[in-house]
Amino acid sequence: MEANSWLWRCPRCGGPLDIVIDGLRLTLSERRGLWRFASAIPAKPLVSLGEGSTPLVEAKFLGDNVYLKLEYLNPTGSFKDRGSAVAVSKALEFGVKAVVEDSSGNTGISISAYASAAGIRARIYVPKDAPEGKKSLIRALGADLVETPTRADAYRMAVESVGENEVYIGHLWNPWFLQGTKTLAYELLDQMGHAPDAVIVPVASGTLLLGLYIGFGELLSMGLIKRIPKLFAVQAQGYARLYEELHGTYRAEPTKIADALRVSDPPRLSQMVNAVKSSNGDAIVVTDDEIVRAWRQALKGGFIIEPSSATVISAFWKLIDNKQISKDDEVVLILTGSGLKYIDIIGKYIVENIPR
Amino acid sequence: MEANSWLWRCPRCGGPLDIVIDGLRLTLSERRGLWRFASAIPAKPLVSLGEGSTPLVEAKFLGDNVYLKLEYLNPTGSFKDRGSAVAVSKALEFGVKAVVEDSSGNTGISISAYASAAGIRARIYVPKDAPEGKKSLIRALGADLVETPTRADAYRMAVESVGENEVYIGHLWNPWFLQGTKTLAYELLDQMGHAPDAVIVPVASGTLLLGLYIGFGELLSMGLIKRIPKLFAVQAQGYARLYEELHGTYRAEPTKIADALRVSDPPRLSQMVNAVKSSNGDAIVVTDDEIVRAWRQALKGGFIIEPSSATVISAFWKLIDNKQISKDDEVVLILTGSGLKYIDIIGKYIVENIPR
Repeated sequence: MEANSWLWRCPRCGGPLDIVIDGLRLTLSERRGLWRFASAIPAKPLVSLGEGSTPLVEAKFLGDNVYLKLEYLNPTGSFKDRGSAVAVSKALEFGVKAVVEDSSGNTGISISAYASAAGIRARIYVPKDAPEGKKSLIRALGADLVETPTRADAYRMAVESVGENEVYIGHLWNPWFLQGTKTLAYELLDQMGHAPDAVIVPVASGTLLLGLYIGFGELLSMGLIKRIPKLFAVQAQGYARLYEELHGTYRAEPTKIADALRVSDPPRLSQMVNAVKSSNGDAIVVTDDEIVRAWRQALKGGFIIEPSSATVISAFWKLIDNKQISKDDEVVLILTGSGLKYIDIIGKYIVENIPR
Repeated sequence: MEANSWLWRCPRCGGPLDIVIDGLRLTLSERRGLWRFASAIPAKPLVSLGEGSTPLVEAKFLGDNVYLKLEYLNPTGSFKDRGSAVAVSKALEFGVKAVVEDSSGNTGISISAYASAAGIRARIYVPKDAPEGKKSLIRALGADLVETPTRADAYRMAVESVGENEVYIGHLWNPWFLQGTKTLAYELLDQMGHAPDAVIVPVASGTLLLGLYIGFGELLSMGLIKRIPKLFAVQAQGYARLYEELHGTYRAEPTKIADALRVSDPPRLSQMVNAVKSSNGDAIVVTDDEIVRAWRQALKGGFIIEPSSATVISAFWKLIDNKQISKDDEVVLILTGSGLKYIDIIGKYIVENIPR
């Protein structure tokens, strides 16, 4: 393989690509983490920073049979590390010298860390209004950071910039990235011994939702689970394309607080619709007020998550209220990103509202 | 047990207390994390946030046979969660309604999270010049935060404030805390299959150094390892009491960057001296310049740690240079705290020095 044979979208239709594994069989390895499922991952384990094997803990403050999957305890503080570990490993297999990404947050940080650990360059295109701390961290992780006027410019400029022995690794499109996030389904089965009834995930570009759908689908095809759990996809106000596909127009101010969910036009939207529908799940929109309330509860429970992750708690409350989830259901909420990246805003959103 | 039988120091001599377990035997449980070693922990597992089972990864950028133990991926971003899980569980056993702690950083955050998860109050005394973000996080985690003029006032006021059904859980003194940190020794044996030749740890009040010494000592007494690894204790300039006990006066400006290592008068100092000496280890002081250099390397390797944790990398380089560690030795460096709490200063210390 070589870098110029790398495809990031279909050369005919321009749509996203998928990976289908013939003759899939699962043999658990003794390794900790994501590569415990190496037999089901179509990439060599060439780079690892300790991703995967995150804790699954009971959430008694939410009810019985409710579990939190602490994906924010991955190496760079988000579930994206599963995707980066596989996608960057694959880039190494292709002999790539530099990966190019557009992101203003968790994925930029994650790809930068894995590229650096793999000994290749990363070039990250970031809108100039992204938080200074995240920009500094991306550069400290050894990446070349290019600031752009807008988020849309970041995408365009990233794609146009790709040179010799470089590839566009963009996570909204990258099929290998989903081969990493799918391991979350495998890990839930490994930790629980069975599949839960429902999984609630935050959704922006769908890398986690689709990873779970692929993973549970593969487990079903191997006869290791009986059905795919209901997948509930949670979106933030103003970025509710998936919800709108299912339920019609939703008008609201764009979210101010769930910055990790700001994706306007996810290229895998039709796949996301299919994942939700065919698992008998749903899409839910939560407001900033609801997010702040849920964030406060999570922090009070000892779970230091980012606001975008707290959306799943708001959604859980709604799904219980409208009886889409029953109190007997076994439910897993995926807590996707670390609140330690946000301690500068905790004062504003949480502490001012705590009675002294 | 009841709260008023809780002792935080010896009622006769005023010195710290230790816990000795009669007839210790280890049976590994199926649980993930710290409570996998519950048979060796003299406390009921009453509260957990997913602590322990942190990744152990190769550090190829430092050499062969060098491993990094990613303790910063614990639930609140530091190894302190091991101590908090056990100490707060024990407080629950005693029927305590509130725990009182003095800390300006990682321990305050950790104790707050575990108390909140356990459904009891935490009151944390914090010097008023502590970082705003950390103070906000402590309060968001549900603790009562009391600001004090100085660090010494925080300790004094915490101890004096203890009321009915409350206990002083101060980690510099608490013997149960060490029963939590000792599990790191057990976990290293579990992950590696044997004890390493040497372990390098940052040291302030010695909770990690002493935990390792207790843990490896217990494993030795059970015949599960052949010798205690050499324990190398790393201190920051200006807070080098352990180093001074072994090597004489060390004069320097107090560290500006290794804030987690600022403990002037550790109550367990003589135990720390013994742990280093009897394991054939040593104490090392590193300067702020050395810390920044090591921090940059760690970040470039993809490891998002705090400056106080980077000290172990500086120390590793020194120990190789002066031949206290050979290139054939199997060495574990403990990375204790998360750099995500420090992204606001990465720009100043790291990025300004990166050529653009």
